[in-house]
Amino acid sequence: MSLPVTNFKPQFNITRASHVVITAKDLGASCAFYTETIGLVLTERTNDVAYLRGLEEICHHSLVIRRAGAAVCERIGLRVMTPDDLDTAKAWFDRQGVRSAWADVPHQGRTLHLDDSVGTPLEFCAEMEVVPRQLQEYHTYRSGSPQRLDHYQIATHDVETATRFYTDLGFRITEYTASDDDALWGTWMQRKGNTHDIVFTNGRGPRLHHFAYTVNDVHDLIHACDTAGSTGFGDCIDRGPGRHGISNALFAYFRDPDQHRIELFTTHYQAIDMETPPLRWSVTNPRRSQLWGMPASRRWFFEATEFAGKPVHDPLLKADPVTLESVLCAQH
Amino acid sequence: MSLPVTNFKPQFNITRASHVVITAKDLGASCAFYTETIGLVLTERTNDVAYLRGLEEICHHSLVIRRAGAAVCERIGLRVMTPDDLDTAKAWFDRQGVRSAWADVPHQGRTLHLDDSVGTPLEFCAEMEVVPRQLQEYHTYRSGSPQRLDHYQIATHDVETATRFYTDLGFRITEYTASDDDALWGTWMQRKGNTHDIVFTNGRGPRLHHFAYTVNDVHDLIHACDTAGSTGFGDCIDRGPGRHGISNALFAYFRDPDQHRIELFTTHYQAIDMETPPLRWSVTNPRRSQLWGMPASRRWFFEATEFAGKPVHDPLLKADPVTLESVLCAQH
Amino acid sequence: MSLPVTNFKPQFNITRASHVVITAKDLGASCAFYTETIGLVLTERTNDVAYLRGLEEICHHSLVIRRAGAAVCERIGLRVMTPDDLDTAKAWFDRQGVRSAWADVPHQGRTLHLDDSVGTPLEFCAEMEVVPRQLQEYHTYRSGSPQRLDHYQIATHDVETATRFYTDLGFRITEYTASDDDALWGTWMQRKGNTHDIVFTNGRGPRLHHFAYTVNDVHDLIHACDTAGSTGFGDCIDRGPGRHGISNALFAYFRDPDQHRIELFTTHYQAIDMETPPLRWSVTNPRRSQLWGMPASRRWFFEATEFAGKPVHDPLLKADPVTLESVLCAQH
Amino acid sequence: MSLPVTNFKPQFNITRASHVVITAKDLGASCAFYTETIGLVLTERTNDVAYLRGLEEICHHSLVIRRAGAAVCERIGLRVMTPDDLDTAKAWFDRQGVRSAWADVPHQGRTLHLDDSVGTPLEFCAEMEVVPRQLQEYHTYRSGSPQRLDHYQIATHDVETATRFYTDLGFRITEYTASDDDALWGTWMQRKGNTHDIVFTNGRGPRLHHFAYTVNDVHDLIHACDTAGSTGFGDCIDRGPGRHGISNALFAYFRDPDQHRIELFTTHYQAIDMETPPLRWSVTNPRRSQLWGMPASRRWFFEATEFAGKPVHDPLLKADPVTLESVLCAQH
Repeated sequence: MSLPVTNFKPQFNITRASHVVITAKDLGASCAFYTETIGLVLTERTNDVAYLRGLEEICHHSLVIRRAGAAVCERIGLRVMTPDDLDTAKAWFDRQGVRSAWADVPHQGRTLHLDDSVGTPLEFCAEMEVVPRQLQEYHTYRSGSPQRLDHYQIATHDVETATRFYTDLGFRITEYTASDDDALWGTWMQRKGNTHDIVFTNGRGPRLHHFAYTVNDVHDLIHACDTAGSTGFGDCIDRGPGRHGISNALFAYFRDPDQHRIELFTTHYQAIDMETPPLRWSVTNPRRSQLWGMPASRRWFFEATEFAGKPVHDPLLKADPVTLESVLCAQH
Repeated sequence: MSLPVTNFKPQFNITRASHVVITAKDLGASCAFYTETIGLVLTERTNDVAYLRGLEEICHHSLVIRRAGAAVCERIGLRVMTPDDLDTAKAWFDRQGVRSAWADVPHQGRTLHLDDSVGTPLEFCAEMEVVPRQLQEYHTYRSGSPQRLDHYQIATHDVETATRFYTDLGFRITEYTASDDDALWGTWMQRKGNTHDIVFTNGRGPRLHHFAYTVNDVHDLIHACDTAGSTGFGDCIDRGPGRHGISNALFAYFRDPDQHRIELFTTHYQAIDMETPPLRWSVTNPRRSQLWGMPASRRWFFEATEFAGKPVHDPLLKADPVTLESVLCAQH
Repeated sequence: MSLPVTNFKPQFNITRASHVVITAKDLGASCAFYTETIGLVLTERTNDVAYLRGLEEICHHSLVIRRAGAAVCERIGLRVMTPDDLDTAKAWFDRQGVRSAWADVPHQGRTLHLDDSVGTPLEFCAEMEVVPRQLQEYHTYRSGSPQRLDHYQIATHDVETATRFYTDLGFRITEYTASDDDALWGTWMQRKGNTHDIVFTNGRGPRLHHFAYTVNDVHDLIHACDTAGSTGFGDCIDRGPGRHGISNALFAYFRDPDQHRIELFTTHYQAIDMETPPLRWSVTNPRRSQLWGMPASRRWFFEATEFAGKPVHDPLLKADPVTLESVLCAQH
Repeated sequence: MSLPVTNFKPQFNITRASHVVITAKDLGASCAFYTETIGLVLTERTNDVAYLRGLEEICHHSLVIRRAGAAVCERIGLRVMTPDDLDTAKAWFDRQGVRSAWADVPHQGRTLHLDDSVGTPLEFCAEMEVVPRQLQEYHTYRSGSPQRLDHYQIATHDVETATRFYTDLGFRITEYTASDDDALWGTWMQRKGNTHDIVFTNGRGPRLHHFAYTVNDVHDLIHACDTAGSTGFGDCIDRGPGRHGISNALFAYFRDPDQHRIELFTTHYQAIDMETPPLRWSVTNPRRSQLWGMPASRRWFFEATEFAGKPVHDPLLKADPVTLESVLCAQH
């Protein structure tokens, strides 16, 4: 392996993870889950689609849920800084031979659709409708009081190929996992100046492992767990609360009524300066995954959301089942 | 001064502070304040009276608010262990020449009314209707999520006389303030095994300075402040957040729409063992009042709720105005 | 089953769980664990014994660790209110045919040794040396900042017999678990006015499952986990963080270098009034054990500390292995 | 007033607030304060200078304290992305007629010194020595456990002129205060993607009002206050804890032994997107300053640290003393 190298002069400026579009078989149940059990704000809802956002978010949506017969992820969204960046992006992808297409998406400015190098469906936009920031409406805070969408984690059959796509676009690797023979098992990449906007890990893919919202405080994280317990979703937590070694996030993972996974976590550290090298973790070091406590469930390791219409590939790197089991159960 | 001595074999068993009865000029506004801005649970409400309780409380009410033309406190309630204790109490007060009378109070068992030695109107009962404990209904938690009524603080013209009444009933002094010439300025007294159920401090009285509910966590306390800010009661906080030297409570004090004062605080330390002597603080030691931070407002020092029909007396101990000012402003 | 009935007029007054005496093979390692990883205060240490306490505790010790060749629990301690209570207790146990003996224990007043009805070695005392309360020495707070010893949990072969011993001494049952055929599987019993001072659960016993210290805050609990992660004890957490249905404690369990188990938890609810009946949980209800999240490890369920010189008996109630497994893994 | 307009294509890339250089009359007392009472990490100390950093910081220093006969601020530091940015900056300032000079600063890469348009001494660098990140060394966390330097607040006689200097360099205004006649009283400006890296407010200046470190949690903020109480710095808190309306920071302000002011606060909201307009607050709206609670002390409003060798000017905008007093005391 040679760790993919960031292009520090990308031709257009991707700024952050922006929004995720998923489908639900029962839109009412899904809305109830995200507002009551998780604590998101419902911006707007029609019969067929619901738009939600975090408490500090001033843009119209960071989570879009469409009613559908099957539960999938349609797209993950990335913001670029200006409308000009969109045109530059289109031209650049054209030159690279990456197919892209303009799309008309409600409540967003011009939107560009394309797939990344491992089949993840993306959409880029530069503008979104602005709604009131609910940050200081403290009497409306519920459950984990999630503040903003932060990042995505994608399972992919080919971490290196995925990573190269994003480093070419200016993403920087803050942390990564590798085996002793230098195969790349996972990469944490960022544009917004902290540990990650997007993560790729080795597995059957492309599949959306989870999307993540920040919470302000340890207390908010535990209150979300308690709230899940009292709304009947106590067993929807398939990992945590715990502390990741990678990125230092204090996390809990929840499964929604369609088994999409949402992470709530406390924010990570700042990563802006150039002199900080990517941090390497051995894939067999259990501290990479948790600094303490009980291991994740098998559900957390093996279940994820497929992307609409995207075939799933077996991973190029095969986990030795004995090793994997020993990693899973290292502590217990 | 000789510090009043606890009677460790009282003839009846007072167990804890139980409930407070106040009046409000606008019952709707008062209910809205206590449920939304503070986070209490509304057990029941009629046109003329509202009953509220903390999240962990299984008894029908710990706060009773009656509609009235003037805002006063009618009574503060103390629990005794058994109905037999009530009869023993009645007989004992009769022998002491303290007038007492049976009262019929909705949702409570037999109730005994009397005034303490400085004119504070009390009611004793041994039983109350039981309602569901809302402790594990986490999705209903709001603002400070107050758990239970804990104690009262009363301003009195004669702390020593007040204290003697309660030590005769088996109350123990955990902490107290005194001047250099040994005059008693304040006493913190308890029956339930932690720092206080009732507090008397020198001032115009009898007046109810505040009643206090416990909160679980620093975060709950601050969230109550933030919620007050967003519901329009940001300036109803007349002291705190801060840390008392006495009792170690982390506190914030809120004024309700009728200017009754409620304290939210994190619970104090356990005080059960006999070998622990009462802790003395000098009344001129600013750390008694706060371990750090900004002093209380003048409102906090001088404003309190009168008791219905009870004349208010000037304190026997006069604060030297210069001294008082210097205490108030010691830090700023 | 008929639930054992509390004797509300016990002849002597037990007030609280007081201290636990365990042994360690490496006293230095054990002291380092309890001070650095857990955050207890070291009161005093000699070559052969260490005395520790919580931050708010004014008594000399709540944890005694003796150097020994094997790791066992020697005794658990209970406080009585006055020295007179000790004499009354001795006479009462003599009349009951329970063997007891006076012991001379450093830093404690007169101490009475005896075994309970299922073989748990107890010691009662009324007095202990007083040392400075470290409650307001905030710069010395470390890790979980544990405040005070709260309770013990004992695995016993016969929960009903154990329970009857304590209800005869005035302990009240706040919560309990029972099977559908009314067999008693666990009892949570208290003297100090909240959910428990001592717990008995069905299993091979007598064995000390854990002793528990209170922490002030969710944050303290998680900081203890993080600290365990950074001092090399990340895998010493064999359950949690999680929320018990029974008692509502937010908990984490840690194993010390000799595999003794200490629980840190946020305090439970007040339980003083007489009209509150014991709360029954079905032993097959997974919410009794956790309101949310991942199940306990097998280590937590099956490992515990033996008492010095006390034979261990198989439980009278046999868990159907299929049932047990399904309970353990109900959620995952 | 016309609000200064951000130059979105600055010629060089300033990334964040980096480090502050202050002097202390007693270096030992100052080091003790910042490590024990605040909780910073001491990277290195000689007889004449101490270098400190936050727990997550991987760069050598964010706070430099030099021994000196008078307590002043020498410089505040800003990071640029690459060494090339430094050369571009030098050339750009030369063209603008702003005097700048290269300086050789230990533990930093090439460093450029200059004053901003209102006399604040700045230094720019692109590189700093890297030291171990102490983020996951949880057993070393103390007091507020400050994570990273976040921003500076400068009092200036001319907010508009100061603001224009920074918007020309690509800083964006997230929030600002203005009087009814459109005079600019304060600006909150940022490069790193949240509410501010630097703040200018109207007053005698240039003076450093405070520098600010982030803390993770409400609990950390209060623990810093408690720790100040127990280390003898309880009266060094001259404002808070409270919640600013502007930026939503939960804050507390501490004065060090030389009366320099450090803010600890929980992080603010993300501010990356272009469609969010600057948020205007009326300078007479008390919620701009605090959403709830007690007003700041006069010390907080009027005391600040002078910059070495820089004359202090009276503000162009004069506060009507009656108005100012009423703002200060609006709530009490």
